[in-house]
Amino acid sequence: MYGADAGFCVRADSPRGPPTIDDAIKKSADLQQVANTVWTLICGMLVFWMNAGFATLEAGLCRRKNSVHILAKNFIVFAVSSIAFWVAGFGMMFGASVIGGKTPDGGGAAFAGFLGWAPMFPGLTGDGANYPALSWTNVPEGVKFFFQLVFAGTAATIVSGAVAERTKFNAFMIFSFVLVALIYPITGHWIWGNGWLANLSSAPFHDFAGSTVVHSVGGWAALAGVIIIGPRIGKYTAEGKANTIPGHNMGLAALGCLILWLGWFGFNPGSTMTANLMIGHIAVTTNTAAAFGAVTATIVAWVVLGKPDFGMILNGGLAGLVGITASCAVVSVASAAIIGTIAGGLVVFSVLFFDKLKLDDPVGALSVHLVCGVFGTICVGLFANPEIIPLQVTDVYVKPGLFFGGGATQLIAQLIGIGAVGATVLVASLITWVILKVTIGVRVSATEEIEGLDVGEHGMEGYPGFALDTAGEKDHTLAPGTAKGTLATA
Amino acid sequence: MYGADAGFCVRADSPRGPPTIDDAIKKSADLQQVANTVWTLICGMLVFWMNAGFATLEAGLCRRKNSVHILAKNFIVFAVSSIAFWVAGFGMMFGASVIGGKTPDGGGAAFAGFLGWAPMFPGLTGDGANYPALSWTNVPEGVKFFFQLVFAGTAATIVSGAVAERTKFNAFMIFSFVLVALIYPITGHWIWGNGWLANLSSAPFHDFAGSTVVHSVGGWAALAGVIIIGPRIGKYTAEGKANTIPGHNMGLAALGCLILWLGWFGFNPGSTMTANLMIGHIAVTTNTAAAFGAVTATIVAWVVLGKPDFGMILNGGLAGLVGITASCAVVSVASAAIIGTIAGGLVVFSVLFFDKLKLDDPVGALSVHLVCGVFGTICVGLFANPEIIPLQVTDVYVKPGLFFGGGATQLIAQLIGIGAVGATVLVASLITWVILKVTIGVRVSATEEIEGLDVGEHGMEGYPGFALDTAGEKDHTLAPGTAKGTLATA
Amino acid sequence: MYGADAGFCVRADSPRGPPTIDDAIKKSADLQQVANTVWTLICGMLVFWMNAGFATLEAGLCRRKNSVHILAKNFIVFAVSSIAFWVAGFGMMFGASVIGGKTPDGGGAAFAGFLGWAPMFPGLTGDGANYPALSWTNVPEGVKFFFQLVFAGTAATIVSGAVAERTKFNAFMIFSFVLVALIYPITGHWIWGNGWLANLSSAPFHDFAGSTVVHSVGGWAALAGVIIIGPRIGKYTAEGKANTIPGHNMGLAALGCLILWLGWFGFNPGSTMTANLMIGHIAVTTNTAAAFGAVTATIVAWVVLGKPDFGMILNGGLAGLVGITASCAVVSVASAAIIGTIAGGLVVFSVLFFDKLKLDDPVGALSVHLVCGVFGTICVGLFANPEIIPLQVTDVYVKPGLFFGGGATQLIAQLIGIGAVGATVLVASLITWVILKVTIGVRVSATEEIEGLDVGEHGMEGYPGFALDTAGEKDHTLAPGTAKGTLATA
Repeated sequence: MYGADAGFCVRADSPRGPPTIDDAIKKSADLQQVANTVWTLICGMLVFWMNAGFATLEAGLCRRKNSVHILAKNFIVFAVSSIAFWVAGFGMMFGASVIGGKTPDGGGAAFAGFLGWAPMFPGLTGDGANYPALSWTNVPEGVKFFFQLVFAGTAATIVSGAVAERTKFNAFMIFSFVLVALIYPITGHWIWGNGWLANLSSAPFHDFAGSTVVHSVGGWAALAGVIIIGPRIGKYTAEGKANTIPGHNMGLAALGCLILWLGWFGFNPGSTMTANLMIGHIAVTTNTAAAFGAVTATIVAWVVLGKPDFGMILNGGLAGLVGITASCAVVSVASAAIIGTIAGGLVVFSVLFFDKLKLDDPVGALSVHLVCGVFGTICVGLFANPEIIPLQVTDVYVKPGLFFGGGATQLIAQLIGIGAVGATVLVASLITWVILKVTIGVRVSATEEIEGLDVGEHGMEGYPGFALDTAGEKDHTLAPGTAKGTLATA
Repeated sequence: MYGADAGFCVRADSPRGPPTIDDAIKKSADLQQVANTVWTLICGMLVFWMNAGFATLEAGLCRRKNSVHILAKNFIVFAVSSIAFWVAGFGMMFGASVIGGKTPDGGGAAFAGFLGWAPMFPGLTGDGANYPALSWTNVPEGVKFFFQLVFAGTAATIVSGAVAERTKFNAFMIFSFVLVALIYPITGHWIWGNGWLANLSSAPFHDFAGSTVVHSVGGWAALAGVIIIGPRIGKYTAEGKANTIPGHNMGLAALGCLILWLGWFGFNPGSTMTANLMIGHIAVTTNTAAAFGAVTATIVAWVVLGKPDFGMILNGGLAGLVGITASCAVVSVASAAIIGTIAGGLVVFSVLFFDKLKLDDPVGALSVHLVCGVFGTICVGLFANPEIIPLQVTDVYVKPGLFFGGGATQLIAQLIGIGAVGATVLVASLITWVILKVTIGVRVSATEEIEGLDVGEHGMEGYPGFALDTAGEKDHTLAPGTAKGTLATA
Repeated sequence: MYGADAGFCVRADSPRGPPTIDDAIKKSADLQQVANTVWTLICGMLVFWMNAGFATLEAGLCRRKNSVHILAKNFIVFAVSSIAFWVAGFGMMFGASVIGGKTPDGGGAAFAGFLGWAPMFPGLTGDGANYPALSWTNVPEGVKFFFQLVFAGTAATIVSGAVAERTKFNAFMIFSFVLVALIYPITGHWIWGNGWLANLSSAPFHDFAGSTVVHSVGGWAALAGVIIIGPRIGKYTAEGKANTIPGHNMGLAALGCLILWLGWFGFNPGSTMTANLMIGHIAVTTNTAAAFGAVTATIVAWVVLGKPDFGMILNGGLAGLVGITASCAVVSVASAAIIGTIAGGLVVFSVLFFDKLKLDDPVGALSVHLVCGVFGTICVGLFANPEIIPLQVTDVYVKPGLFFGGGATQLIAQLIGIGAVGATVLVASLITWVILKVTIGVRVSATEEIEGLDVGEHGMEGYPGFALDTAGEKDHTLAPGTAKGTLATA
């Protein structure tokens, strides 16, 4: 079993004669497939790592008494997502269209429909034929599943922050399962599953890495939760003003944001699902948008709120990242800088705006993922430049929809997609949350909420050994994440 | 020195004529070797990163007054392991058998023995001939060393959690050196070193990524420490009941568990030590087992303890990961789900069981790494399906023992390996701990233990600036990690 | 758009006839370029991740009341660096020499000069011709930028720790911009930009991964800040003794150090900017130096200070890493062990030494990055062995200056480089800090410093909900990071 020949050798089923040109070409093709596999898998790991980012960011921006609860939700949500996406989600998203699709002229898997389907509980060692929408990449079926799974998990974890500090653990677990097994795959099928939005007759809807497919879907689901569950006790005064409720651990929050930034280098460049030369440009646009987003939010918060609020600095970076996600592969570095700048400003005002609407989002998830997700999707129509990318492509495995015209037609396609996805996810999520509300309940008791969900839901505390500062929750003038700062609370 | 030709070119020692087919084939072989090197090295980095996971998980699950001490132990242990494995461990594990081995018919390095040997303090730039047990992969010698080193370090760091909160810093450092320089390489030689277990006449013992080689070895060494060092003061009442001693920082603990989950994507898929298409399937089985482990532990803890204890949620995920490690490359995704489910339930009852035995393990390391390591090794005999893997293999560099029959014969081989490794490591570790006890001592004074090891051992505190909650260590009804919860403490 | 052929295929512009040997060779060259791109990009991500390491390490070693401020500085500094390096820094570092350069005999870009230049706000999708100093690697222009950016960001973030707990947020942001846009690229041009130090007639200055280019540059800039800004209030007594000011969160600090160790596997092996077999050896020398550094610092601190101070343990590991950075590719593993050992001892005495000079550096950044950066640069002359590397090189894309003689001539070249870079960066940084001091001011008010920069600069606190231990800042006998321990404070 231990090979004596540590050099290159051929398998027993290889041709026995001297190597031919076809052998060499075949070996190169195999190597390209291996490179695609390694690259996509590593990027998937980076996106998995974003779970740690969401967990620590959201925990840091919540109160100490709810820290175990938010950590538990952010930990279990990826486990639940893994099960849900294996059971059904992956097949519904990338299987052939079974509702409203059409069959190619030469025969083959139906596409351009409203729902996909493939066998449940898949073995994932096949040749990929069950998932025709992913046939553009030749990585193994398991890698296709893993990479798409971590994206689905990201959408689910976005919800946890927005509904934090008052939502029941079991209700959240069930909602996450429904989101990843049913809702996310439906709208995902329309776009990445070669469904109707990917085949709009005017111009295909373009969302390279998921400003809409992932971030705004998570955002719409979160918005539904925020509406149904309602604000935290004490967040809004009788006169309608928003109190600030500062998060308990800025070290965790900062770490979380840096984890997310790192993870985005898997999220965006990895969406090639192929090892090619394009990944470098995507990394640069991604990073540039984040940088301009962070600096802009810092400056805007400084001007508007009087201080460079730390929650705003962090959310500014994330805003830039969400904003560039749809167009990261098709815009110039300068465009990325503009997109990041706008997103960084947008997120500050958006946080203030949601508080005006009394939509209580403890970590700013709606502003980052929903608002900037929609904004980023629009940016494809505004900034995409088809001449950017071909210069870099040396490979044939290219994500569908990458070559396109941009311009007004594209902008309209983007708006159609934003509206269709938003309406569908919002309605489906509202229905799900309402069903949960009238059955098992979605909200802990007022007593438990005031005492903290850690003890109520998990029977434990986050920081035994540390004395409580009982005044801590009231005496701060700026709230990280939900920061409206001195102006808003004056 | 700055090459004018940025394109592809050949070295000065290449043939000067036009390229031939052999040139093309040779270049492909070189590229495969480069891909193997990049993949294995990156996976090794991910496993290195697990040191941060163990450090934060274990620190979070211990008390504040011992936080610096456990962090220091988890930091220094990898440094000590790096030295020990370079000095001697690597050569003893992967060198030719020098005790009890046999020589191949055609001549060559002895194998199937009880102990290996290769020069100490190796230069690690050779052609790998000193380490015949790793000749199945063609990555450079340095990469072979680095990848195996991070596994050895993992075994050592498992011990630190189990003996936390009462063990002297110097005794732990010396034990770690002995474990990595001597004990781990001996049993490791039997399996991955092409020793006697890898050459059982009935069926070779199979442990793809180390349920036994790494996790149960660390677990047995930890068990020896727990026995010799004894429980923490106050852990067990005079009547023999176990008090709960909650950990001090759930943010750190959650982060640590997510780091470990990420690191396992290097641990299991990286154990191919080759860039091939199999890595995707291994990533999926690994993740699936973790997901089912976490969800199962959550539910079981909810039912048994009345609440979804957070320590149990985390340890459930880890239990699934340890459980799948041996068989990750040879089972289906559905089998991985079953393995994870069983492991997730097992870990809850195991934590309760060790407390019945008064074996005090502050972080649940015995339950996760020893119990689930043994369970995972058995699973090879129960779930391995030789038809899973060949579908995915496109390369010739395949870890030995990957193609095998499974079934009852395999199950017996697995049990032989579990018994032989367990007895050896337990006895060797007991001897080492006893020698340390009678010489430099293994346990801090009772006064120091009560006041905290941070001040006693390191002259400092973990969290200056934070007021102590002196009641914090008694008033919680559920202990994370060691959680037995309200039932156990009632 | 969805390709029916999931196997290997050729682009439309490929030759239509049967494949030739040239096709096979061309495909292999393309694959090598893809491998280089994937490797370099992933390593760049790891270096980006070091920002999280610096943020958590420095925050952990500072006081609770300044934790938000140091986190904010460490977060925004990479955003600022990204903008500064794109605007101007990258072009000034790697563009053709415009001051004092000479033109190659056969024509081409000027080199060996004092300053480079290339268009500002670059598109980064070109063929690399604007950056002739990086023509030795064939990764895409965007990857060249990204990889070099994360190194520039590292230099900037080194400064933040040394000037922590008293420096104004806006002054630090502006200094970071100047450092990355102007100062770092100038001295960087001399070495990695094919400037005059890379073309010394005696022997080219050698700094493989940046002991000088990155670490000592960051260190000199930090030293200038420490001099101009002055020590923290209460650090030094009237009699000139140094008080210990312990950091507030050892969990964050330990995590940060492990993040940095991980990131260094991108920093050093990634500096090949090419996927080849050398990366394994570099990973091993890097890790070995870190391990010996950590263990040595532990022992030295134990002997000198009476306890294994935790800050010293961490800084010992970092000292080894900085020390090996310049020579990581050209020394043996045994030499790396020696380098790490010396660096680990050096850092302990250096920390004590800077306190004698009343240069107040809260996190030990000067000792780690400046002292060990200089030491590591000298080590090239002491330990480099040209026979180490050629054994491992199988590729033509090799960083310039890798093959060289070592010895006394080399040592002199190293000393010339250390002196020239040090003097330039120190003077330029002093000028910049002075200009900032006389314009916007560099230091917060005494009142704000005593109350904490979190409230003063950001209007918030790091840990709401946790009661303050007001005695916490005075009653500890050992200061992590700046630890002089019981001896120094007796």
